[in-house]
Amino acid sequence: MSQAKTRKRKRRPDPTPTKQPIEPGLVGGQYKPLYEQDILKIHNASLDVLEQVGIEVMPSECRDIFETAGAIIDKSRNRVFIPRAMVEDALGTARNEVVLYGRDDPRHDMYLSGAKVYMGTGGAAVKVLDLETQAVRETVLDDIAKIGRMCDALDNIHFYLRPCVARDLTNEQLDINTFYAAVTNTTKHVTGNCFTVESFRDVFDMCAMIAGGAESLKAKPFISVTSCWTVSPLRYATETVEVMTDIVRHEIPVFLSSAPQAGATSPAALAGSLVQINAEELSGLVYTQLLKPGAPVIMGYVPSVADLRTGNFIGGAAEFALMNAAICQLGQFYNIPVYNSSGLSDSKLPDIQAGYEKGITGLAVALAGANYVHHSAGFLESLLTIAYEQYVIDNDINGSIMRAVRGIEVNDETLSVDVIREVCFGEGHYLGTEQSLGLMHSEYFYPPATDRRNREDWEIDGALDMRERARIIARDLMKTHQPKRIDPAVDAAIRQKFDIVLDPKLAGLA
Amino acid sequence: MSQAKTRKRKRRPDPTPTKQPIEPGLVGGQYKPLYEQDILKIHNASLDVLEQVGIEVMPSECRDIFETAGAIIDKSRNRVFIPRAMVEDALGTARNEVVLYGRDDPRHDMYLSGAKVYMGTGGAAVKVLDLETQAVRETVLDDIAKIGRMCDALDNIHFYLRPCVARDLTNEQLDINTFYAAVTNTTKHVTGNCFTVESFRDVFDMCAMIAGGAESLKAKPFISVTSCWTVSPLRYATETVEVMTDIVRHEIPVFLSSAPQAGATSPAALAGSLVQINAEELSGLVYTQLLKPGAPVIMGYVPSVADLRTGNFIGGAAEFALMNAAICQLGQFYNIPVYNSSGLSDSKLPDIQAGYEKGITGLAVALAGANYVHHSAGFLESLLTIAYEQYVIDNDINGSIMRAVRGIEVNDETLSVDVIREVCFGEGHYLGTEQSLGLMHSEYFYPPATDRRNREDWEIDGALDMRERARIIARDLMKTHQPKRIDPAVDAAIRQKFDIVLDPKLAGLA
Repeated sequence: MSQAKTRKRKRRPDPTPTKQPIEPGLVGGQYKPLYEQDILKIHNASLDVLEQVGIEVMPSECRDIFETAGAIIDKSRNRVFIPRAMVEDALGTARNEVVLYGRDDPRHDMYLSGAKVYMGTGGAAVKVLDLETQAVRETVLDDIAKIGRMCDALDNIHFYLRPCVARDLTNEQLDINTFYAAVTNTTKHVTGNCFTVESFRDVFDMCAMIAGGAESLKAKPFISVTSCWTVSPLRYATETVEVMTDIVRHEIPVFLSSAPQAGATSPAALAGSLVQINAEELSGLVYTQLLKPGAPVIMGYVPSVADLRTGNFIGGAAEFALMNAAICQLGQFYNIPVYNSSGLSDSKLPDIQAGYEKGITGLAVALAGANYVHHSAGFLESLLTIAYEQYVIDNDINGSIMRAVRGIEVNDETLSVDVIREVCFGEGHYLGTEQSLGLMHSEYFYPPATDRRNREDWEIDGALDMRERARIIARDLMKTHQPKRIDPAVDAAIRQKFDIVLDPKLAGLA
Repeated sequence: MSQAKTRKRKRRPDPTPTKQPIEPGLVGGQYKPLYEQDILKIHNASLDVLEQVGIEVMPSECRDIFETAGAIIDKSRNRVFIPRAMVEDALGTARNEVVLYGRDDPRHDMYLSGAKVYMGTGGAAVKVLDLETQAVRETVLDDIAKIGRMCDALDNIHFYLRPCVARDLTNEQLDINTFYAAVTNTTKHVTGNCFTVESFRDVFDMCAMIAGGAESLKAKPFISVTSCWTVSPLRYATETVEVMTDIVRHEIPVFLSSAPQAGATSPAALAGSLVQINAEELSGLVYTQLLKPGAPVIMGYVPSVADLRTGNFIGGAAEFALMNAAICQLGQFYNIPVYNSSGLSDSKLPDIQAGYEKGITGLAVALAGANYVHHSAGFLESLLTIAYEQYVIDNDINGSIMRAVRGIEVNDETLSVDVIREVCFGEGHYLGTEQSLGLMHSEYFYPPATDRRNREDWEIDGALDMRERARIIARDLMKTHQPKRIDPAVDAAIRQKFDIVLDPKLAGLA
């Protein structure tokens, strides 16, 4: 090789495959709302609460398990007092990483641990802004299928927690059909709720059929269940605990979801709300580890806020963001993955209020290193309403947030002293330099529904606001995106065994 | 005092004066986008650039000053190479705190230092969305007066950097009338631009008349000037440097504003852009400290982004937020106050895109501890358009961000173990407890233009989105808010001495 050629190669290296500007699971933790010593104070106060205030547990298998393990029971007040040593034992056996798998699609496997960040949908809306009429209406099963299909195509929605309640179904149809509609429309990890032991077992059996057996499902669970097993402050919901117990015994990952509202069901002092929710979460960790040491459990902190003027739940507040960011530090302190909330808005429609509330709450928790940020796609009106176009919009918001999480790489190459010298002693401009061209698609994230053109070009295209642009994209995705279908033979067997009411056309089988 | 009474006092202490949930100058720094070692790497690379690449300075007094002080001059290429020792000397004499004063109103004094956060307007838009027609039109002098009056009333806009260009004025009328319209409509600190030495001296003289003399103005400057003295990469703008030199000699605080666009006028690698802008800022610090050691100078880092697909300036990007947050760490490393940018949006109207871009970029820089965040009120369409209602909206956004900056106080009282015990052993609910009532207006921020009601109540009031609500508030503020007027005798003298074209009705004299 000639010397000239060598020099040329040095100056113009072969382009390496372009790295994506963002990806699921980037590492946060650059934002620390709490001082180290404050984390310890909250931890110790939570242990005091568990020892001295305890939790209310009615007579049940759960209470027997606590008693057998050495907790002190006050039967007259139905309170269980948990000694520190039991908490320490649970922290010793709990998993430091919980893997949530995609459905036969390793691109969507999520490794929940440390400060890795994943963002996705949240659950249990009862109203939706109809994509065509823009009017509010009740949510139905078809919405779960259609939104699932849309989310399957949106890169910055990393998992699919069933977004709404299928209000057209009976209680008996609800859980199995909700999971069916979700898992047939996306290969992303699906999280849902199960209201009874029986319905959970049906869901487990159905997913085992898709996975090729119960052991395959346990080895690589593409579903998980969120369990609202507490009634804050510090009370267990007996029937929900029974369902949660069964889930843990089936080795399906479970989120210990607790969502006290500061000022209503937890103290108005933000620090006090953190103490209470941390006590609730630690008690759940103790219980699940007593049930099955090493069970795949995710701490489900959702410290929320009540508007003290009205008592309303509010999700778009800075105080909400602060607490949900702070609990990431608790999770990192315990080295146990956490589930939390952000991306909510108290606006009734996708307007500038929704945008700023989502931007602020989402960025705060992601920079704090939240492992599984639910509610971060689709939501409006606190927790009541979803909108199709909002998923498209939140895909952009989450992407921008993930770009911030990635941060700034500082090394000899990126410091660019040679590039600066070359440009300043040469053409005086960086556009068109090798570095600029090379970094165009790896250093910069271009949110697809966001308009960065000048006013003239934007006006030529109809001067649409982001909501209108997102509605067009949402319609298009539902028409054109085809998720990976489940095996038709398995589907037929599922339909034979269970009362599946979803139109096959909406189950990826069209 | 009876024992019963004593006990009652203990349980129900006299309410202490309610602390505000937020205030200007709260301390950020909880978010650190750069590792400590990366700050050092950027610092050292910047010094290498100053020594090896230098800055382009045409023959001028400025270049002579550099030469006299020991910089190495390459006259054939008009480059000034600055040795490390000169930078270290400048860092030694520069002020660690710069105080920007309100106009005879100490509530608005700003103590720029460390990680204290102040957020306000930004400058030089050429278009405005008319409040009544919602159509875009050219900006005029009246807009500077009216928006100033509005910002005077909006608590979370901490300073008033003249927002737009009075396109109805001649160049000769521009600077004096712009400052006049701003300072007569708000007692908040005013920042502006001066295009010539002569126009700066007029502005200085006018403000000295208001302050009661030049020495009073220098002692408590209620105005400051932003100077765009560089043309990136690493070039000085000769005429602007002359104006800046005069400002420094008059002891008026000056912002060394540099806004290279990554990929166009600075490297596409974010770290490289930080190196270049840091070199530019350090060179400016050196120059101003050579002019007048201890001169009140604020580093004016505005690392920006070019959309590499179009070359357009974009202000709402995550990469923009990341770099503007990172420079706060540089300022804290040097212990010199910084000016930077956030709250921009590339949207053409106040829609959900504008909301999320403002939320993300604003929160990032505020949590990083930006001292003087300009552009964080009013802006749309990158840097081209402002909107009256946007100031009202950004007042809410900034308030939410400041609440996040305040963080979570953790102490024995806020940990609330006693409150938790009392509630769990008692009524089981925190609403109406002494703590909740006491913290209602000190722990929680209620953004006034943000709607947190339920859908039914919102619909009864007309189902207005935030933009519409903000338009109503903006109209109302301009009608009802009366800023503190300047002394009518001084005003008459000013109007006699200078070519003031603003209608007296718009100068707080109606």
